[in-house]
Amino acid sequence: MKRYALGIDYGTNSCRSLLIDLDNGAEVGSAVFPYPSGEMGILLDPKDPHVARQNPQDYLDGLESVTRSALHQAAAAIPGFDPCQVVGIGIDTTGSTPIPVNREGTPLGLLPEFKNNLNAMVWLWKDHTGHAEAAEITQLGSTMRPNIMAKCGGIYSSEWFWSKILRLRRVDEKIFNAAYSFVEHCDWIPAVLTGDTNPLTLRRSICAAGHKAMFSSEWGGLPDKEFLGRLDPSLADLRDRLYSEAHTADTRAGGLCAEWAARLGLKEGTAVSVGAFDAHMGAVGAGIKEGTLVKILGTSTCDLMIAPAGRPLADIPGVCGIVNGSVLPGFHGIEAGQSAVGDLFLWLVNHLVPEGYGATPGEKFVNMEKAMTGQKPGATGLLALDWNNGNRTILVDVRLTGLLLGQTLHTEAHEIYRAYIEATAFGALTIIRRVEEYGVKIDEIINTGGLSIKNATLMQIYADIIGKPMKVSQSEQTCALGAAIFGAAAAGVEDLGSLQARVTATREKVYHPIPENVAVYRELYALYRTLHDAFGTAGWSGRLNHVMKQLLDIRARQG
Amino acid sequence: MKRYALGIDYGTNSCRSLLIDLDNGAEVGSAVFPYPSGEMGILLDPKDPHVARQNPQDYLDGLESVTRSALHQAAAAIPGFDPCQVVGIGIDTTGSTPIPVNREGTPLGLLPEFKNNLNAMVWLWKDHTGHAEAAEITQLGSTMRPNIMAKCGGIYSSEWFWSKILRLRRVDEKIFNAAYSFVEHCDWIPAVLTGDTNPLTLRRSICAAGHKAMFSSEWGGLPDKEFLGRLDPSLADLRDRLYSEAHTADTRAGGLCAEWAARLGLKEGTAVSVGAFDAHMGAVGAGIKEGTLVKILGTSTCDLMIAPAGRPLADIPGVCGIVNGSVLPGFHGIEAGQSAVGDLFLWLVNHLVPEGYGATPGEKFVNMEKAMTGQKPGATGLLALDWNNGNRTILVDVRLTGLLLGQTLHTEAHEIYRAYIEATAFGALTIIRRVEEYGVKIDEIINTGGLSIKNATLMQIYADIIGKPMKVSQSEQTCALGAAIFGAAAAGVEDLGSLQARVTATREKVYHPIPENVAVYRELYALYRTLHDAFGTAGWSGRLNHVMKQLLDIRARQG
Repeated sequence: MKRYALGIDYGTNSCRSLLIDLDNGAEVGSAVFPYPSGEMGILLDPKDPHVARQNPQDYLDGLESVTRSALHQAAAAIPGFDPCQVVGIGIDTTGSTPIPVNREGTPLGLLPEFKNNLNAMVWLWKDHTGHAEAAEITQLGSTMRPNIMAKCGGIYSSEWFWSKILRLRRVDEKIFNAAYSFVEHCDWIPAVLTGDTNPLTLRRSICAAGHKAMFSSEWGGLPDKEFLGRLDPSLADLRDRLYSEAHTADTRAGGLCAEWAARLGLKEGTAVSVGAFDAHMGAVGAGIKEGTLVKILGTSTCDLMIAPAGRPLADIPGVCGIVNGSVLPGFHGIEAGQSAVGDLFLWLVNHLVPEGYGATPGEKFVNMEKAMTGQKPGATGLLALDWNNGNRTILVDVRLTGLLLGQTLHTEAHEIYRAYIEATAFGALTIIRRVEEYGVKIDEIINTGGLSIKNATLMQIYADIIGKPMKVSQSEQTCALGAAIFGAAAAGVEDLGSLQARVTATREKVYHPIPENVAVYRELYALYRTLHDAFGTAGWSGRLNHVMKQLLDIRARQG
Repeated sequence: MKRYALGIDYGTNSCRSLLIDLDNGAEVGSAVFPYPSGEMGILLDPKDPHVARQNPQDYLDGLESVTRSALHQAAAAIPGFDPCQVVGIGIDTTGSTPIPVNREGTPLGLLPEFKNNLNAMVWLWKDHTGHAEAAEITQLGSTMRPNIMAKCGGIYSSEWFWSKILRLRRVDEKIFNAAYSFVEHCDWIPAVLTGDTNPLTLRRSICAAGHKAMFSSEWGGLPDKEFLGRLDPSLADLRDRLYSEAHTADTRAGGLCAEWAARLGLKEGTAVSVGAFDAHMGAVGAGIKEGTLVKILGTSTCDLMIAPAGRPLADIPGVCGIVNGSVLPGFHGIEAGQSAVGDLFLWLVNHLVPEGYGATPGEKFVNMEKAMTGQKPGATGLLALDWNNGNRTILVDVRLTGLLLGQTLHTEAHEIYRAYIEATAFGALTIIRRVEEYGVKIDEIINTGGLSIKNATLMQIYADIIGKPMKVSQSEQTCALGAAIFGAAAAGVEDLGSLQARVTATREKVYHPIPENVAVYRELYALYRTLHDAFGTAGWSGRLNHVMKQLLDIRARQG
C-alpha cells in the first residue's frame, strides 16, 4: 500500500504544502498561500521600522488552503489516491516567532478585545523592536551566566524569544499581563492540529527552545529564575508557565484531532510531529548527514551541520547556536549564517545598476552575469566585505556595514556584482574554516534555495573560493520536504535515516573547483580576511597599505 | 584711449580666446575651436590606451580661428573698436605637453615624412606611455639627486617632460634622432607668434621648466649631464640643445611677427608674453595673491598657492611642485592637486546611477542633488576615499584605488554621490592642512571651474568640511583671463598687481561654513584620515574596528 507524508512550511510571506510519496520522494502535490494580512503578510507600524508582526488567523487559513490543494492535486494525478494514505504531517516555521497566548493557548491576537493591538499579534522573527532588551540580556548573561551565553555564540539577538518577551513587558504591560504564556509558531501549529493547545502540556520543539530560548538540559532547561528575575521579576514568574521539556522533530506531538481532520480532509489520528524551524528541516530535506554542510541560500543564508551528540563538542566562538537534537535526533545541530546574501544582490540591482543592463531586476541580473562571463578571478581589482546587514557568523555583530575597495574610473556595475558574490563566498569560507578549526569536518556541501538553482556563475565562484565541490539539492522545497520526512518519522513507519536517504537527493550537476581559480582566490581571501579582521575585530592591529597594491598586481596578472 | 588684451587658452580638446577690456575686465570677445584631429582632438593608438598625442596643425588653425572670431565680436559690439587697441597677447596650454622639433623649431609632426608617425606628434599631458621611464627617473633621482626629487614632491610623473622624452628614445630612435630639441606647447605658440622658433633662443616658460623638467636656479637649470647621462647618454647630449634660462609669464617673449599679425588681424609688434600652464594662469585670472588658495575644479583639480620668493620655504612633502615665478613673478608657485574630482562623479553617474534619477547624466546629477537636500552631514553613514584615479597630493601614488564604506541594504545612489563629494572635500582639506603645516597660511579660497558655478551643494559641503568660506571666481574663463593679463603685463602698460586686481573678481555669493556641520565633519574627517593613512601610507599601523561603529553613531545622531 502507498504511503504519503505532508509537510507544511511557514515562510515569512506565505505558507506552502508539499505532499510526497514515501517510496521515492516524488512530489505529488504542493500549494502556496500568501498571507492576506498586512504588507505581504507582515503587520507593520509606520512609526517604527523595527516592528514586524503577523496575524495568527493567516496561519490557520493557509493551513487549510494549502493542504486541501495538495490533496486535490494528488487525487487528480494518482489513480486510487486516498487521503487516508497520508500517514504523517510535519510542520516547519520561521523563528523565533513567539505568540502571546491565553491560558487555553489561544493567541491573544485572535481575541476580539486585542485584535487591533500589534503587540498581541505574532512577533515575527525579523521584528527588531527588542534590540535594547537583547543588549541587556547579553550584558547580564555574559557576567552572570557565561556558560549559557557561550552556547549561543556569545551574543543574544533581538530576533530571539526572550528579547521579544522582555520588550513586550516594557512597552505594553496590559498585553504582557494578558499573556498566560508564549508559544513559538512552530509549536502552536502542531498543538492546533492535535487539539491540545494548553501551553503547559503542548509539545515544544527543542530546535526553537535550544536555539532561541537558551533551553538546555545542561542547566536544567530554560534559564534559571534568578537570572530571569534580574532581567524582570515577571520573567521569573513566567518561567513556570512555559516548559521544562522540549522534543526533537521526529517525536509524535499527537494525532490529528477530529476538527482539523475534517477541515483538512485527512484521517483523524494521523501522526503530527513536533515542529521545528524552516532551515533545520530544510537541512534534513537537503540530505544533511555527519560531514555535510547544508547551505540555504536565500535573502540571507543559513548554514547547518551536525555532529554526534555522543562525542564532546567545544563551543565554537561566533557560531549562532549548538543544540542537541535541533536538526536530527542523536546529533548536535550547529547553526551558522550570513546576514545578507540574496538581499545584498537585490540591494545592488535595485539601487545601483543602470538600465543599460536591462529594464527589470531579473534582466539586470542575467545581463550582469553575461557581462562577467570569461572574466578571471581578480580581474575586477575589487574586494568587498559582505556586511551591508551586519555579520552574523563569525563576528555576531549587527553594527558592521559594507565596504567596497579597488574601484577605478572604469569600474562597472557587473564587476561590483561579482565582487559582492565573491564577498559572500569569502564570508562562507570564513564560517567553514571556523567550524573546521573546532573539529567539525566538512566533506560535502549541499546548497539549496533559489540562488543555488538559478545562478550557475555564483555556484562556480563558490566552488572556486571555498575549494570544495558544490552540490545542489534536488528538491526546490527542502523545508517542506524535511517537514514531510519528520511527519512520516513521527508516524513510526520507518527509521528516520533510511527514510531521509530514500526521499532526498542532489542534482547531477556538481560545481567542481577549478584549480587555477582556487589559487588566485586563495590570495584574494587573505586580503579579504585582513579587511574582515581589521574592521570587524577588536583584537586586530596592523598595516593595510599593501591591500590596494596587491589587488592591482593580481588584476594586472588576470586582466 | 581704450586698451584690450587677448588671452589664448589651449585645453585638452579645444582652444579658446578671450578678449578683455583692460579698464574693467569686461569680456568683449571669446570663441572656441575644437581640435579637428583624432578623437576630440586627441590622437589615440588602439593598441595602447596610454597613448595621447596631438596634431600641432590644430593649434595653428585654432589660433587663427578663435582670435579672428573674438576680434569680430568686439568690432560688432563696441563702436570704434580697433584691433590696434589690443596691446598684448598671452598664451596658456596644458602641460607637460612637449613637441619634438627640428633645428628650425618646426614640429616633426608637421613635416611630410613624419606626418603618419604618432611619436612625431605632440605628446599630450595625459599621455602615460612613459610610466616605466618615470619610475626609472624617480628611482635614480631619489638616490643620486634627492634635492631635485624633493622639489617635485619625491616622485617624477609619467606625465612630465623627461619621462616622455626618455620613452621616445626607447621606443622610436628614428624620431628621437630627428628631434633636434623639444619645446613645450606653451613655449612653442609664443615662439610662432613672435617669428622666432629657434629652439636655442626661443623664450622658455619657468612654469613648464620648473614644474615638469626639474629646472631650477638652485642646481644650475636643468638636471646635470651626469644625472641625465645615467638615464641615457643621449639625454646628456640633448641638454645642450634645450635651454639654460626660463622666464616668468609677464616677460615679453617678443613682438607679433608680420606673418601672424596678418593672419590674426592684429598689429605687427604687439607684445606677446612668455607662456605658462593653464592652471597657473587660471590662478592669476581667479585673483591669486599671498594667502589665497585657488582651486580649479575640473575632471581633476589643481590647487595653486603662492609664497614670497624672498622668504625661505621648506620642501612640502607630497606637493606636486614648488617653482619660483611659476604663477607670479617674485613668488614661489606651489602646485597641488587631486587626481579625480569631476571624473569621479562622472564615473558614478555613468556606471552606477539608475534611470530612476533621470534619463541623462545631467538630469541624474540634478535629481541626486535634489534628493540629498536637507540631509545632514553623516546621515548617509558612508565614508569614501577619493582615489579611483590614484592620489596626486599628498600621497603622490597612482597605485591607489577607491574605497566606499558604510553601505547598508538601504543605501541609495544619491547618498553615494554625496559620500564622493565629501571624499573630494576631505582630500582638499588634507592638502590644505599639509601646506599650512609647512608655513603656507591660507586665508581665502577662490574656486573656479564648472563645478564651482554649477553645484551649490558641493560648494556648501566644501565650506563645511574645509571650514573656510568658499568664494567663486567671477569669470568662467579664468585661464584665458590670466593669459590676457600676462599679455597686457608684457606690453608694459601697467604693473601686474594692479592690473590683476582691477580685472579679476569673485562673485557676490560666498559659501560660509555652517558651524554645526563643521563640527560633524570634523569627526568624519578624523575617520577619513584614518582610512587615508591606513591604506595610503607605509608608516601607519593601528586599529580600525571603531570606524564602522562611529559612522553608525554619527548617523544615528544626524539621521
